[in-house]
Amino acid sequence: MDERPVKGDSQEDDLVLSLRRLEISDNAKGFVDLLSQLSSATTPLTDADFRARFAELAALGDNHFVVVAEDRRSGRIVATGSVFLERKFLRGGGKVGHIEDVVVDSAFRGRHLGQRVVGFLRDYAKASGCYKVILNNTTDLRSFYEKCGFTEKNIQMACYF
Amino acid sequence: MDERPVKGDSQEDDLVLSLRRLEISDNAKGFVDLLSQLSSATTPLTDADFRARFAELAALGDNHFVVVAEDRRSGRIVATGSVFLERKFLRGGGKVGHIEDVVVDSAFRGRHLGQRVVGFLRDYAKASGCYKVILNNTTDLRSFYEKCGFTEKNIQMACYF
Repeated sequence: MDERPVKGDSQEDDLVLSLRRLEISDNAKGFVDLLSQLSSATTPLTDADFRARFAELAALGDNHFVVVAEDRRSGRIVATGSVFLERKFLRGGGKVGHIEDVVVDSAFRGRHLGQRVVGFLRDYAKASGCYKVILNNTTDLRSFYEKCGFTEKNIQMACYF
Repeated sequence: MDERPVKGDSQEDDLVLSLRRLEISDNAKGFVDLLSQLSSATTPLTDADFRARFAELAALGDNHFVVVAEDRRSGRIVATGSVFLERKFLRGGGKVGHIEDVVVDSAFRGRHLGQRVVGFLRDYAKASGCYKVILNNTTDLRSFYEKCGFTEKNIQMACYF
């Protein structure tokens, strides 16, 4: 049986949240706008570009999963994150989950939505047979990710083109 | 024209090196044995498991590239590294290269093979349209990766299952 998490619902005073996989209709619900809160370098995606990228990622099947939290009252996407599964030759052919692009709408921070998104992606990676899940973050987010079950391990280095 | 690097040859006193993409016959040339120098937790892969993983990665096409350095005199793989391309919704649908599993045979260290492998993968990511390439490493490798053109950026955190 496939035990990967696919959705989860919850209700708070002013939010009726549905955590589920990204759908092609989600750009109209503010998905790309939400990502712009993550990086000032984000340039707008046209809807055609969004659909093309969506199709590319869908072709990767369960190896790439974008989770969104939709507020079902407003119909807006209020949080998101993604994980992709790397298949290695190491560790007897092990898999590693890479979490990327976690963001919560600034109007809804401080309500543990980030922990729910990260927890969802962590559980997805575990249920997919990964031996670990990793991510990169700034030091000011260390304690947040510790609450999510992560431990500081290495440094991240980058080369920009 | 596709300008991604696919191979490079060089000759030293006792090495005739060919940098090229991993081939399905490379397990017999010591590829998985070489990886065992990277992680003590590496369990042996049977040749059938190697071939199955090779086929899974081949299905990802140019999104996943394993480079190997073969010493053509001995027919052994003496260095390797991999890069996979992550397609984002951020940055106008940008791509990021993730470098993983770089290792040089202990008998051939100190001869800049690591820099050649990392440089090859960095150039591959650039030619593939990535806006950056990233990797995670221990602090004792910081200066090595600085020589390869990388700058320390963030921390890596991990959750083991």
